[in-house]
Amino acid sequence: MTDKYGKLTKDICDELASALGNGGVSTDDDVLDTYSWDQAGQMWGHMPEAVVRPDNTQQVSAVMKIATKYRIPVTPRGAGSGLNGGAVPLAGGIVLSLERMNKILEIDKINRVAVVEPGVVTNDLCRAVAEEGFLYAGYPMSTETSFIGGNFATNAGGGKVIRYGSTRRHMLGAEVVLPSGEILNLGGKFRKETWGYNLLDLLCGSEGTLAIATKLIVNLEPLPGKTVNVLACYPTIEQMVDTVAKVVTSGKMIISCEAIDRMTADYTTEYLGCTLPEQERSEAYLLVQIEGNTDEQIEDGYETVGRICQENGAFEVFVAENRTDSAVMWNVRQNAFEGARNRDPYACGGGDLVVPLSQVPELMRRVYKICGEWGVQIGINTHIGDGNVHPVPLKPKDMSPEKWQTYCEDLLDTLIDEAISLGGIGSGEHGIGHVKRDILIKAKSPAELEVLRGIKKAFDPLDILNPGKMFEPLELQS
Amino acid sequence: MTDKYGKLTKDICDELASALGNGGVSTDDDVLDTYSWDQAGQMWGHMPEAVVRPDNTQQVSAVMKIATKYRIPVTPRGAGSGLNGGAVPLAGGIVLSLERMNKILEIDKINRVAVVEPGVVTNDLCRAVAEEGFLYAGYPMSTETSFIGGNFATNAGGGKVIRYGSTRRHMLGAEVVLPSGEILNLGGKFRKETWGYNLLDLLCGSEGTLAIATKLIVNLEPLPGKTVNVLACYPTIEQMVDTVAKVVTSGKMIISCEAIDRMTADYTTEYLGCTLPEQERSEAYLLVQIEGNTDEQIEDGYETVGRICQENGAFEVFVAENRTDSAVMWNVRQNAFEGARNRDPYACGGGDLVVPLSQVPELMRRVYKICGEWGVQIGINTHIGDGNVHPVPLKPKDMSPEKWQTYCEDLLDTLIDEAISLGGIGSGEHGIGHVKRDILIKAKSPAELEVLRGIKKAFDPLDILNPGKMFEPLELQS
Repeated sequence: MTDKYGKLTKDICDELASALGNGGVSTDDDVLDTYSWDQAGQMWGHMPEAVVRPDNTQQVSAVMKIATKYRIPVTPRGAGSGLNGGAVPLAGGIVLSLERMNKILEIDKINRVAVVEPGVVTNDLCRAVAEEGFLYAGYPMSTETSFIGGNFATNAGGGKVIRYGSTRRHMLGAEVVLPSGEILNLGGKFRKETWGYNLLDLLCGSEGTLAIATKLIVNLEPLPGKTVNVLACYPTIEQMVDTVAKVVTSGKMIISCEAIDRMTADYTTEYLGCTLPEQERSEAYLLVQIEGNTDEQIEDGYETVGRICQENGAFEVFVAENRTDSAVMWNVRQNAFEGARNRDPYACGGGDLVVPLSQVPELMRRVYKICGEWGVQIGINTHIGDGNVHPVPLKPKDMSPEKWQTYCEDLLDTLIDEAISLGGIGSGEHGIGHVKRDILIKAKSPAELEVLRGIKKAFDPLDILNPGKMFEPLELQS
Repeated sequence: MTDKYGKLTKDICDELASALGNGGVSTDDDVLDTYSWDQAGQMWGHMPEAVVRPDNTQQVSAVMKIATKYRIPVTPRGAGSGLNGGAVPLAGGIVLSLERMNKILEIDKINRVAVVEPGVVTNDLCRAVAEEGFLYAGYPMSTETSFIGGNFATNAGGGKVIRYGSTRRHMLGAEVVLPSGEILNLGGKFRKETWGYNLLDLLCGSEGTLAIATKLIVNLEPLPGKTVNVLACYPTIEQMVDTVAKVVTSGKMIISCEAIDRMTADYTTEYLGCTLPEQERSEAYLLVQIEGNTDEQIEDGYETVGRICQENGAFEVFVAENRTDSAVMWNVRQNAFEGARNRDPYACGGGDLVVPLSQVPELMRRVYKICGEWGVQIGINTHIGDGNVHPVPLKPKDMSPEKWQTYCEDLLDTLIDEAISLGGIGSGEHGIGHVKRDILIKAKSPAELEVLRGIKKAFDPLDILNPGKMFEPLELQS
């Protein structure tokens, strides 16, 4: 047995610094600390030995060549807004932050694409293309902070998947750097491809374990027509949940179909210092965004959805056609996790269950029941129209953080088993990182794991790129 | 050097027959001959040693276990409607035909999916789900013959990609059999996933070189509202081509944007025994299908598109709101390749260029110019709104078929180089098979080829599944 990885010596750091130029490499303790954890929480963190911040693709390539030469692990990092430790440098070594590669390079109106660097904040891209009359349809709840490169790495979902699909659907091309430092150009400004195995779609969602995206060509949609938001207030969770399939299959143009429960409403409005309508009486809220080309379609849309909600038990339905009212509703929805963390710094963001739409009612029942049996309070926020449910467990007051880390992981594992037994999976949009790694390994068959590991090896034979993530236990000797 | 593959002995055939039961295995010469070639043409064919026709997944698995045990090559086959020899058993061995696995297992209205076996004819699926109010949005031109399993294998495109995307976008889950005989279940009745590398999207488009799909879960869309077809007649190709980007970016709901040139119109109407309007005067036709929710939207749609066409040189624009007129237009478009083959049995179906929409005019100019220089007549049919152009070269009368095979391959290679130089690729929907294999190998970088071969190895370490295809030269010794 020998050490699998080389040691990051002063000489290697000098070599990195000479490749990256002034300020591109840091080994200061406070910098290392900042890059040692992501939104999974500090308890899931691990210290790197150096942080590099390249300015361009050639520098990323140079870093990977040096890392390959000396077998140094490299963990790519976007905004660090991930919830499962995907950006945590588990084996130490180098954190490669894409934050300086933050330019929107082109908005191409005829081909309906934007060409961007990975460090662009998702919402900055959305705003820039909106000025040109386009929608970038990726819309993770972390849109104000997450990078487009991180969206690519996790195949991020969000609030508009029901209409537009996840991030993968909007990625048309990429420039990527392999662990060897080689640069590949995949896809392009076109929308049809059967030109060898589709590496682009494989890399999207591979959480930086196979290659580092240094440029992305993303699809742009036309801006939606008029939209309207409907907020329905329910006296019980069950009634809200039973409404959803009827809304989704109503034939109206649904852009979003989201929900939160009372606990989520309470801690998020507390965090934001606002209130939702009928908050005293509401056990659950359903938030539906509907599109229409004309005033008549908008009216027909909210009347139809509102009627479905009321027929299924909503005691009040609010229609927000103006930006201010809509902004409050969406602000609460978007900050559901921040609200939980404000209430409890140990709130767990790992819950990301997906089931077929028809199984959402049963899943929700089981999640509340199991968490009750485990003595754990939860808030649930959900992209409910996608069958994607985020239970956010809060640490029991009398439990130590150390015990909670294990207890919470076991709870998540149990909830994921329920999702799987209902024909679903354990992650829809957050990814695996290392928080859910062991759960994923348990859920996959040996035959599938062998294939996954073979693919990893095809890209990264030295296992230097983001080791210890997804389905690979961390191994420090070989 | 030893033989890479085992010999398919009588004993092994008996073992296959005992796994598959009565009539599941055939070694009759006429059967072998039928399964030796696909729509690339007989000159690209190769004889198998046995044809197996399993009834179910367990039988497919049994065949693969036997093939693995004796290192026998296996070539999966759908309808044999492919244009690049993807279903040709280059190394002999077994052809595994999916034709008996042709059941639509379920149409699930709440989850908006159908569960199907791979041998279902695409159009049969379309018809069955339409009766339930849904659209299966895959729509290859070969929809009357191709199997859904073949659509999956090639990531088939077709006439509605501009609106709905290629086949991959509509595949939500699959049961697949690995070369080892192991069965994997990928995805499911849901629409969000980040649960390990996305093997489903990788397998779609891998042309049966990695695994055999035995069940598919496909997305269903709502049936479109009202539609209308507009046929614009042009005095020159250039004017038609220059119209396209304006139509696509018109903001109207375009479902299809297709075109054919005069040569294609001539040989296809001759084949079908029909005529198109203004056929004497038209050098090119543009066929646009537009959707609308109301009569007003339909009217606005065809008026807008019609005006754009006329402003760009169309001398006549026909609007077909009824089925009969639309059927003639679409019948000609769908039979463009059959028309070419009727005119010339050596017509080559391998041309499948893709470029960014903005580069279509330049690509079309270069294609006609180069084919002229090479002394080769072509018809062009094109999914022009997708930037996907099919030049169909016809064999010069005085050239031998043997010479034509090489000459035509060299011509295709030259045309593909032009597409690549314009930011495109050499296949949008037909796949690579072995007809375009050497061209693909030339186009890819050594670093990418190494990754592709590593992926192949992860699934198929013995190289028994559809060998000699895509990026793998056929090797019979190891």
